[in-house]
Amino acid sequence: MRIEIISIGSELLSDKVNTNINLLAEKLATIGLSISRQITVGDNPEEIKEIFAESLNRAQIIISTGGLGPTFDDYTRDVVAKVLKRKLIFNREVMSAIARHFIERNIEMPEENEKQACIIQGAEVIPNKVGTAPGQIIECDIVTQRHGDIAGKVKSQPVTKSPCHRVTVILLPGPPREMLPMLEEKVIPYLKQKYETALSRSLVLHICGLTESEIDEKIRPLLEEEKKIEGLRFSLLTHPATVDLKITLSGKDQLLLEDVLKKTKNEIYEILAENIYGEDGQTLESVIGQLLLKKKKTLAIAESCTGGLLGHRITNVPGSSLYFKQGVVAYSNMSKSQLLNVKSETIEKYGAVSTETVREMAQRIKNSAQTQCVIAISGIAGPSGGTKEKPVGLVYIAIIVDDKEIVKEYHFLGSRLEIKEKSVTTALDFLRRKLLK
Amino acid sequence: MRIEIISIGSELLSDKVNTNINLLAEKLATIGLSISRQITVGDNPEEIKEIFAESLNRAQIIISTGGLGPTFDDYTRDVVAKVLKRKLIFNREVMSAIARHFIERNIEMPEENEKQACIIQGAEVIPNKVGTAPGQIIECDIVTQRHGDIAGKVKSQPVTKSPCHRVTVILLPGPPREMLPMLEEKVIPYLKQKYETALSRSLVLHICGLTESEIDEKIRPLLEEEKKIEGLRFSLLTHPATVDLKITLSGKDQLLLEDVLKKTKNEIYEILAENIYGEDGQTLESVIGQLLLKKKKTLAIAESCTGGLLGHRITNVPGSSLYFKQGVVAYSNMSKSQLLNVKSETIEKYGAVSTETVREMAQRIKNSAQTQCVIAISGIAGPSGGTKEKPVGLVYIAIIVDDKEIVKEYHFLGSRLEIKEKSVTTALDFLRRKLLK
Repeated sequence: MRIEIISIGSELLSDKVNTNINLLAEKLATIGLSISRQITVGDNPEEIKEIFAESLNRAQIIISTGGLGPTFDDYTRDVVAKVLKRKLIFNREVMSAIARHFIERNIEMPEENEKQACIIQGAEVIPNKVGTAPGQIIECDIVTQRHGDIAGKVKSQPVTKSPCHRVTVILLPGPPREMLPMLEEKVIPYLKQKYETALSRSLVLHICGLTESEIDEKIRPLLEEEKKIEGLRFSLLTHPATVDLKITLSGKDQLLLEDVLKKTKNEIYEILAENIYGEDGQTLESVIGQLLLKKKKTLAIAESCTGGLLGHRITNVPGSSLYFKQGVVAYSNMSKSQLLNVKSETIEKYGAVSTETVREMAQRIKNSAQTQCVIAISGIAGPSGGTKEKPVGLVYIAIIVDDKEIVKEYHFLGSRLEIKEKSVTTALDFLRRKLLK
Repeated sequence: MRIEIISIGSELLSDKVNTNINLLAEKLATIGLSISRQITVGDNPEEIKEIFAESLNRAQIIISTGGLGPTFDDYTRDVVAKVLKRKLIFNREVMSAIARHFIERNIEMPEENEKQACIIQGAEVIPNKVGTAPGQIIECDIVTQRHGDIAGKVKSQPVTKSPCHRVTVILLPGPPREMLPMLEEKVIPYLKQKYETALSRSLVLHICGLTESEIDEKIRPLLEEEKKIEGLRFSLLTHPATVDLKITLSGKDQLLLEDVLKKTKNEIYEILAENIYGEDGQTLESVIGQLLLKKKKTLAIAESCTGGLLGHRITNVPGSSLYFKQGVVAYSNMSKSQLLNVKSETIEKYGAVSTETVREMAQRIKNSAQTQCVIAISGIAGPSGGTKEKPVGLVYIAIIVDDKEIVKEYHFLGSRLEIKEKSVTTALDFLRRKLLK
């Protein structure tokens, strides 16, 4: 099964990073399909036309992203209709959906959006619940070109001996938040039903408290042993202060796949133990939320150098208002005294970034918010504000759970944003470990 | 000048995001060159061969990244030598450099690394200061293929009328930290000296308060007029609550370029006016920071549904402690009363999400923090917690600048995170507009 991806958008050949390709690869892998080639092209109708013509001769599945917008530089619909020699037909149902999108937002629909209701003859429409551009699935029979038949179109890999071959062309919008739900809800089930040949299962373990090299060292003996299992692959991906370990397994027998995956997972849990905080997209903040709910505890926070990021992360979890009560961003010394009642002598004597100050921040917010748990962070995110004694990246984190209080000192490296991210992730992990006990 | 990029590596068709393409685009733009097409392929020698053969027929410059490592799945050297019908020659000087790399790190050199010292006949070597794989630049004359000459190779765009055309093939390693210095120090100067014919200038205008379609509608007459100017291109990119308008201009005369770009920019400013909040990567939070510093004003915030994101965004700006004093994340009703002294009657009578509550939040934080400016946000981020009267996405934002106070009601759509992001961006833009007056 040959799949080609066509990514359309001048921004992708400039400063916009293309993450759709990885999302597509991940979802296609779940039904045992993989990508043979991916082509990126700018908003240039001639070039887009040539690429589609070439791909139609090589691939059985073509998925394009981008170029479905309402504006002057969106060409995908027109070009694909031309290449496939099909008409664009105005679709009333799609038009109503687009109009509804604007009515719900209380915005007058610009005239330009009408062109998004034009559907390629014979296409199945993929509704877009997030934006206005619908996706389209077109099944077409392509006359397999011999070399020389038409300039720019050539059979470069014989896919069939007959003069015709069937191609599934799928057009999706470019923004990942629009593309992804359409891919998950419509495209993957469609392709699964039509093309699934091999099965694939994967599992991601999320790890905090160990570096990529430390994990590699710990699990290497296991990896060597598991090399004997056909179709089993491991990969590591590093984020600020966390690492993902992905286990992928492909084969034909579903029960066997699940057995091997479960066994491998258990072996890794034995090695990495509580350093694993979650699986398959779970976040530290959602894990903490579950622990707090289970233990019937509530949380308040006081942050300085992280400026609100800790609260943002905690409140990204739906329903977090059940356990998260309040936060204070005490960015100035005055606010530490005034909002938190940290003694001005403490700040004067030890400094705003110190064990003593962060401990008082934690104690005060606990008293005023009357929660069982507290996180307090104070540090220097940089790039300026560091001294020889207190360099950029120095961060103190205090955790209180019931009557137990711990303060730790950290030294993080990186940009201002990285130091903020590492501080917050480390603080969340710190609380998680205390709640596990 | 037609440039094609070939990205080689199975991980790029799986979970690894390809950022090399954006680095290449950025550096090539500095000498007026732009990418026509980018192709990604896995570690599959047949597929790589086919892609190089096709590109050689279309492009004048081919830059590949990846596949230069020492292991079994690194094919670029071998395949390119074969396609160009040239020998691979063992290079002693390169071998010494690789051996030195290992000696400096006190590691025994694995035998596999010897193959990295093989250079394509006639290639210029690009030293690698970070890793072991050197880059290679090969100048070659390619017999322009007619359709049908060789299966899988076809002249799809006539690049020259002569039977031969010159192609510069550049092989670079995949890891960005190795690729980038080689690109900057060797490849760009090489291409500049050889090919710089046109210059390119670009400008991004960041816009808030108008949708993509509204911007399109407003600037369309200008766009139609400017179509007459050769080399001038526009593109739009949408983010939650903001849009980027990128203007790119290429040509030969630097002064003329700058003149036209300036004129175009001024025309767009006349149309979009204060909806433009910044240029070339400026953020709303940095623009506000500059305005606050200039007007010698300080800022405090009180946020509810955004949970800390507003504070996080404001404190992402280095030096924000000069004007940002404090924030309160009043997530529970109790915290609104206790931290902010919002009257419990107000919350009981009008609800936590109301004009009245958000106004009191703003007034109280202004009094206690003693700042000139205040932002307060209260709303329902969802997915639960909405009612018919107060649906998910309902957000109230209050702004105070000195003694002027304004509250606005918004209805945002999207996921929990999108509603948080749109609320914060809209609030920051709201303050910006007030500070402009």
